[in-house]
Order: sequence, then C-alpha cells, then structure tokens
Amino acid sequence: MSSPFAFEIKATSGAARTGLFKTARGDIPTPAFMPVGTAGTVKALTTDQVADTGAAIILGNTYHLMLRPGPDRVARLGGLHKFMRWDKPILTDSGGFQVMSLSGISKVTEEAVTFKSHLDGSRHVLSPERSIAIQADLLGADIVMQLDECVSWPAEKERAAQAMRLSARWGARCKTAFGDRDHQTLFGIQQGSTYADLRQESSMRLQEIGFGGYAIGGLAVGEGHQAMCETLDDCTGFLPQDRPRYLMGVGKPIDLVEAVARGVDMFDCVLPTRSGRHGQAWTWDGPINLKNARFAEDESPLDADSACPASRLYSKAYLHHLIRAEEILGQVLLSWHNIAFYQALTAAMREAIQTDRYDQFRAEFRARHLRDTAA
Amino acid sequence: MSSPFAFEIKATSGAARTGLFKTARGDIPTPAFMPVGTAGTVKALTTDQVADTGAAIILGNTYHLMLRPGPDRVARLGGLHKFMRWDKPILTDSGGFQVMSLSGISKVTEEAVTFKSHLDGSRHVLSPERSIAIQADLLGADIVMQLDECVSWPAEKERAAQAMRLSARWGARCKTAFGDRDHQTLFGIQQGSTYADLRQESSMRLQEIGFGGYAIGGLAVGEGHQAMCETLDDCTGFLPQDRPRYLMGVGKPIDLVEAVARGVDMFDCVLPTRSGRHGQAWTWDGPINLKNARFAEDESPLDADSACPASRLYSKAYLHHLIRAEEILGQVLLSWHNIAFYQALTAAMREAIQTDRYDQFRAEFRARHLRDTAA
Repeated sequence: MSSPFAFEIKATSGAARTGLFKTARGDIPTPAFMPVGTAGTVKALTTDQVADTGAAIILGNTYHLMLRPGPDRVARLGGLHKFMRWDKPILTDSGGFQVMSLSGISKVTEEAVTFKSHLDGSRHVLSPERSIAIQADLLGADIVMQLDECVSWPAEKERAAQAMRLSARWGARCKTAFGDRDHQTLFGIQQGSTYADLRQESSMRLQEIGFGGYAIGGLAVGEGHQAMCETLDDCTGFLPQDRPRYLMGVGKPIDLVEAVARGVDMFDCVLPTRSGRHGQAWTWDGPINLKNARFAEDESPLDADSACPASRLYSKAYLHHLIRAEEILGQVLLSWHNIAFYQALTAAMREAIQTDRYDQFRAEFRARHLRDTAA
Repeated sequence: MSSPFAFEIKATSGAARTGLFKTARGDIPTPAFMPVGTAGTVKALTTDQVADTGAAIILGNTYHLMLRPGPDRVARLGGLHKFMRWDKPILTDSGGFQVMSLSGISKVTEEAVTFKSHLDGSRHVLSPERSIAIQADLLGADIVMQLDECVSWPAEKERAAQAMRLSARWGARCKTAFGDRDHQTLFGIQQGSTYADLRQESSMRLQEIGFGGYAIGGLAVGEGHQAMCETLDDCTGFLPQDRPRYLMGVGKPIDLVEAVARGVDMFDCVLPTRSGRHGQAWTWDGPINLKNARFAEDESPLDADSACPASRLYSKAYLHHLIRAEEILGQVLLSWHNIAFYQALTAAMREAIQTDRYDQFRAEFRARHLRDTAA
C-alpha cells in the first residue's frame, strides 16, 4: 500500500511555493498556518470555530499533554483527535523545546532529557524513543516531530554545533523508533542557530536519515526578524525541494510573508491566540490594541469582508468594552478573529503564488501592514 | 396604536401556567429563564450560542452597564441590543440591587441611592427617574424594572415594611417617569421579605399604580429553598393573574420547578454561567462537578439527547481535563451546557403544563434530580 502522504507543489513565484500536503486525514493547502492547541485545545475556541476559519491542521504540544492529562489517558480515550474533537490532521511537537523552556530543571544527556514538571515538580524523562511513542502511538499524531535540542540565542558556534549534532543523532533514533507507518509521517528538524555552515551540515545529516518533511528549528528565539530572514536566506535552500518545510514557532504576519518568500511552507505560533487574549487584533492594516481608548466608540468591525463572525459582526467599540471589562467573550472573539486573519493571510499568499505575483503581494502587504509602525 | 405587549396564558396545571409573553422584539414562551448578560455579555458565550439554546430573552445589569461602558456611550452606539448583538427582548434590572450589594458605600434616602463604584470609587446617584432614563432611553430595554430597595435576610419586620413602602413610592415615581410607551413595558417589584402581610400590602400598592408585569423581589437572599417556597405560597397569589410574574435572581433548577408550581412565569440567575465557569454542570440527574476525578476517563457527554453541541459532543473526560487545566474552553462549554439545560428545563415545564401533568413532572424531576443529594 502506498503512503497517503505526498507533497504536490502546484505553483511557484520566485522562491515561494504553493501546493498540497496530502495526509491520511485530509489535504493541507500550503503555505499553511497551524493554530496551536497547546493542551488539547486551541485556547478559548471550540474546534468548530477553529475549523470555520479554514484551518486545515492544528498543532498539539507533547510537553503539556504528557503532563496533563497524560498520554496514556489520551490513548485510552481514543487518541488526541477524538479527545479534543478534531478530525483533521494534527502535528505534535516533540516536547523538547518546552521541556527546555518551561520545566523547572532540565538535564540533557546523549540518552535523553530529564526534567521536572512545571505543574507539580514530578520528574520525567523524555528520550527520542519516548517522544515518538507518545506522539505516534499514544496521542496518535498525523505528523510527528523528531526530538531535538534547541539552543537559546545568542549561542556560541561550538555550543550550536554540539546541539545540532546531538539533534541529528536523536533524529536517527527517532526514525528507527518510528519505523514504517502508512498513516503517519515523521519530520526532521534542522538546527544550527544563525550559522549557515551549521544549518547546511544539519540538513545533510537529516537528509541522510530521510524524513517525510523538514522543519527549521532554533529560529524566533530572540534573534529578531532581520536575523531570522538572513538565516532563512541560507538555510531553506539546504532542504529538499520536494518535501514540506516547516518553520517552527513563527510568527508575526510579516514573518510569515517573508519566510514564504524564502520557500517555507508551514508555520505554527501561539501569537494569534495569545495576543488575542490580551486584546491585540491582527489586521491587514497591522496590529491594533483594542484596549486603546480610540476604539471606545468605533462602530466598525475588525474586518467587514471576513467570513469569520468574530471579525465581521462585532464592533470595535464592543470588543474594546469586553477587553476592558476582562470578559471571557473578548478573549474568545479576538482569538477567533486572529486565527481567521492568519488563515486569510495564508490563503492570500497561496493565491498570489498561484498567479505568480508573490513579490507584488509581498510589497503591497508590507506597505499596508507596516504603514503605522517603525518597522 | 395598541401595545405589542400581551400576556396570553395558554394552559394551567394546578397553580402552574404556561403562555406567551408578547413583546415588540418577539414572543417569550413562559415559564421562561433569562440568562444574565451582566456587562453586555452572557459571560463566556456569543449571542449566537445563547440564542441556539432557545433563550428568548436575556437580562442586562444596569449597575454594571452604567459604570462601564456607561449608558450614554451605549446610547450613542445604538443601544444595548445593537451593542451586544442581541435582537430579541432584553430585560434590564433597575441597578438598585447591585448598588446595595456590590458598591462600596451606598446611602439610601427618599430621593435616591448614592453610591461609589466598585471599579474606581467614583460617586454616582441612582434615583427612580435616573434608573428609568438609563434603562428605557439609553440602554433601550424592552422590559424595564422599577427601582426598589431590597433588604437583606433576615430583616426585622419594621425594616422590611419601611423598604417595601419606599419601593412602592419609588414604583410610582418610575411609572410617572416611564410614561406611555408602545414598545417598552415597566414591571413593578413586590417586596416585604418573608412577611405575608407585607407582601400583600406591597402587591396592593403596586396594582394601584399599575404595571405591565410584576416581579417578586427580596427572595433568594439567604432565606433558603424552604422559606422561599413558603413565601411564594402566599405572595404569588397576591399578584394579578393576567400579568407575568417574575421571580428575581432565582435560582437552582429545583427552585424553578417549585416556583412554577406556585404560579411564577419568569426567572433570571447567574448560577448556570457562574457555576459553569467553576466546573459545575447542571443535569437532569442533579449537579455534577467536572473537576471530580471520577470523570477523568468518562467518555459519555453531559447530555446525549441535547441539541446543544456543548452538551452532546464533548466527553466528560475532556471537560474534566479542560476545567483541571483552567482552560477558557472549559468555562465556555460548561456555561453553554448549563444555559442549554435551563432552557430545556423550562421547555419541559411548559410541555408538562400544556398537557396538565405538572405535578407528575415535578415529582419525577425531584426524584431524579435530587436522588444523589441530601435535599
């Protein structure tokens, strides 16, 4: 039986590509943005609301789910899709990034990462093999990520090289543990901080192992938009043309637009939901903070042309009131709007690539979206 | 032009009645439960979700809205219906109850209540005339409540009589201020604590003034279910048969069932949304707390027969996880389920009265709903 996974590039525009990433649970049009469903929920939204935005895939966080409710429990309840009522594809991260950023004490050895839960201090071990077992067997993810070590920024080159090579060895162990599966696929993760030669070495090591897709890790960790773009200028080209490229944890709308210009296909980020919960709405005209007094009597909606009820049907004045009054509905509506905006943005990028006018789209987007900012 | 307001009693079963309260913005089948939209939002829910439960009317809190965003601002934005996107009827309370229970310092004189905002300490005056102006002219409520003074429980009889008579005088001033309106109606509020003769005197004074409907105030303030039922045994009958009777701030499902048996037609309460935000779900089999470990792997939904997605589509195990993880979606889904349950409960009561088997319904409800409790 042939794998249902295939990546079909339909059109290119410069380095930008649009296509279809086919999975056992449905096709993902690329460029694609994956809303983050941290602990079995895209925060504040029902899965029906998420699906209504056009999202074709969401991300689940292995670190959060392994601590609560626990991967064995999710497995006994039929897997993550059934547990959270989402029947389209799910990509899970390996847990490694959040182990290193959120947990109390983490210790990285050749064998595994040992850490203490930020919830109750309990001790856990995450090895490449355990990460695969959790993601692939217990949660039942469609797209499984290898365990990697992501260094903070800035990183000395020697430290970055060490983590990159450990990540490659862990990638090989993950591949072995993952084995052959028809309905799930495994992605490798390129590391190497902002060093082009390390990014190249990482890519070669990963391609020797062979993955269903390739992620770019270790960016959006503090280096800034410009340094990220410069690193992408080099490192995207090191990855195979015929596999999806996934830029992890990115980002602002402008980051997506620039990364797609450099050949990236997939993204995930907590920004639209997190900033929404804090009153920020992302729009074609840039981000706005609904707490601002200038919206107190603004009767216009966030986006009169959007298909999303949160964007189209509620006045900014009402959203301003809800956010000021710390009402849950304000968090719901702005999270919903922001996810819908990110989906509309990727749809517009796909359309621009399809018609080979991505550079024009990018210039127009920059002019409008960044008009009111110093950037 | 004749008023669109009319109360048509379709059937009775003992003292229980079912009918249609017709308003300019739509008919309200009674007995009716009004979800509370405190500060321009039924907490955690979109108005579409509220409407989907079958709610035909919601309540707005004058106290909260007069402090934020302010009644003049709501008026400039087109009134409360437009502001919050709810085109069915809205009943607003007078603000008096919450002035006396929530604000910092309140001083009641013959003329008005003076109080300090619990938000910023600013000083406000609420007179009968101001309450009517806010509700009827600025917020644009369909059903406007008179300003009253509600004494705490227990109350000395003399104190209860004093507050009841002040409330009656305020009711007359509210009637004058309200004047003749085609598309809005004014309700009086019976007071008198648990003293039957005071309740009777209150009712007589109110009927001399003449209102579109009559509320029973001053109950559910700590006297308990039994004392409330005993007071209702007396005081409902003092009110006219041909006008809606509204028991303010009530209550638990069992309170609604018993009050309807005593001839009450309308209710409001924050309980379904407030308890939902804290993990409690109301069901035909009584209340359950989703935080409880026994639900950790319970794959059944809260109500497989409900039309509400929150009741029918999510497992208790998932809701347990969301509440444990303090996820907003848990608060959303349980608020939604609880409002849907209250609407299903009033629909079942209407059906039972229509077929003249309310006593049987009440007995069956008590047996099932209270089975696991000491009550």
